Amino acid sequence: RRSHMAVSYTDPQVSMDLLRAVLQPSFNEDIMAVFKKYHKFFEKAAENVKENVGDDVKTDQLIREACRNVLEHVRSLPVSHQTLMTSAQLVL
Amino acid sequence: RRSHMAVSYTDPQVSMDLLRAVLQPSFNEDIMAVFKKYHKFFEKAAENVKENVGDDVKTDQLIREACRNVLEHVRSLPVSHQTLMTSAQLVL
Repeated sequence: RRSHMAVSYTDPQVSMDLLRAVLQPSFNEDIMAVFKKYHKFFEKAAENVKENVGDDVKTDQLIREACRNVLEHVRSLPVSHQTLMTSAQLVL
Repeated sequence: RRSHMAVSYTDPQVSMDLLRAVLQPSFNEDIMAVFKKYHKFFEKAAENVKENVGDDVKTDQLIREACRNVLEHVRSLPVSHQTLMTSAQLVL
């Protein structure tokens, strides 16, 4: 048991991942906060479009497309395509 | 020219994308700010590991792995896997 702990605390990857695990909830919250902020703008815009154009406007679809587009136009994140690919579960 | 404008302003997708384009710089900034914040924590931790473990520790690699891992543990973003796939250019 003792040697197991010793290995854990001196392994660089393990040390880094302990920190990662500690920060994870806060990171998730920060990322979600950004998405929620812009989602709100798109919701209002879609309601507006519906008022102006007519009831056949599907607001949910407009919002989803806008969210997808805003993400597709993000550039130069400090992570790779490959990383983003595996980074989240789908909700939309 | 007039009819072109009329089409633009009544097309729901176009209206939504005009808003998206307006919000894009701010969205990019917010997302980058989150990444920078946690990148900083990982930088400090990696320096610490190097001090404790020795000079053969590759801090850049440790930081990159930590960034990848924190993203891989993000759950329930309001976007799909597919969307994230195409959402960013790689820098790392």
